[in-house]
Amino acid sequence: MKIGILGSGTVGQTIGARLAALGHDLMLGSRSPEKLSAWAGEVGVKVGDLSATAAHGELLFNATRGDASIAALRSAGEANLNARVLIDVANPLDFSAGMPPGLLVSGDDSLGEQIQRAFPGAKVVKTLNTMNAAVMVSPSLVGDGDQTLFVRGNDPAAQAEVGRLLAEWFGWRDILDLGDISTAREVEAIVPLWVLVMMKLGRPTFQFKIVR
Amino acid sequence: MKIGILGSGTVGQTIGARLAALGHDLMLGSRSPEKLSAWAGEVGVKVGDLSATAAHGELLFNATRGDASIAALRSAGEANLNARVLIDVANPLDFSAGMPPGLLVSGDDSLGEQIQRAFPGAKVVKTLNTMNAAVMVSPSLVGDGDQTLFVRGNDPAAQAEVGRLLAEWFGWRDILDLGDISTAREVEAIVPLWVLVMMKLGRPTFQFKIVR
Repeated sequence: MKIGILGSGTVGQTIGARLAALGHDLMLGSRSPEKLSAWAGEVGVKVGDLSATAAHGELLFNATRGDASIAALRSAGEANLNARVLIDVANPLDFSAGMPPGLLVSGDDSLGEQIQRAFPGAKVVKTLNTMNAAVMVSPSLVGDGDQTLFVRGNDPAAQAEVGRLLAEWFGWRDILDLGDISTAREVEAIVPLWVLVMMKLGRPTFQFKIVR
Repeated sequence: MKIGILGSGTVGQTIGARLAALGHDLMLGSRSPEKLSAWAGEVGVKVGDLSATAAHGELLFNATRGDASIAALRSAGEANLNARVLIDVANPLDFSAGMPPGLLVSGDDSLGEQIQRAFPGAKVVKTLNTMNAAVMVSPSLVGDGDQTLFVRGNDPAAQAEVGRLLAEWFGWRDILDLGDISTAREVEAIVPLWVLVMMKLGRPTFQFKIVR
């Protein structure tokens, strides 16, 4: 599958390298793609600017920083996002008061909703945002994979497809579809607790599970 | 042990009935204690007003509604709270915009901190607030008890004592002490997700676990 990942930090690189290793045609998008060329050659992914990356992907990931996501997606080009599934893994974290972070959104909004409002033609599916990048692509790193992946968005078919792909690609088993994109606010709100637990345990290899 | 439970809703009644069944000397506090007399006689707990209940308990629970907790604790009397362990199970939920609720506090505050600031002599330990009342006293109802109980407060000895008591009374096994009372903000923030999952599953018998 032709996949574009917008954002070239740890999350983008981790997802990109894993999907390339699975044989997908990956492009990683950055404002400074030239800095990534050595790494990209090693792992077998293409690099491009945000617009080229969005044009490349039949399926897109938003792996940019939460405070820069809307601007980055504008650079990617609204026309390139229309009718595409956009997997949003970003979090609107506010580190201005130190650790653990707060949220940049008020309680009646979320980054997922902001992105869906700004790009109404995209099929935004919010998921994977409640964990470390290594766990996103290897849930078996924690508890033999017995954790919960939250999925939400406005297009049930897109949500189901993303759940199917994440199960096939990375081995996710416990996938909980919470409903429309407005439910991003309840899930983004648990990320500060994730950071707090990471500080407490001293490692990022843990994960939320809804025992039921 | 002489225990006072401030608040006589489902949470207060559930905890009170269980602790009375375990042989403790329980008083349940309400603004209208006369309404509880039939129930109290059945389950073997005393009832009283908030002040009498706070005076009764060597250990206290705040099981009032989050939007009324500070006022209820003022009625209970600051002198009655001084030097006591106060287990705060309340949540600052805002149902004004419907379900799932938002929070009544901003991201840089929590009800746990508000209570600790208002009653600096109390040893506030926030815990049990991330679940249904039936699960608080019977964690084995969900996943054979394999869930995580978050505990936080400013007095490490009080936190350790509360953890020990909740393990002994109710069978809690996976107890995660997150640090000082400021960490109440990260944990209270996951309660709207709890409500959302309850709406999705159609039942309250599930619980958060930190798989690690």
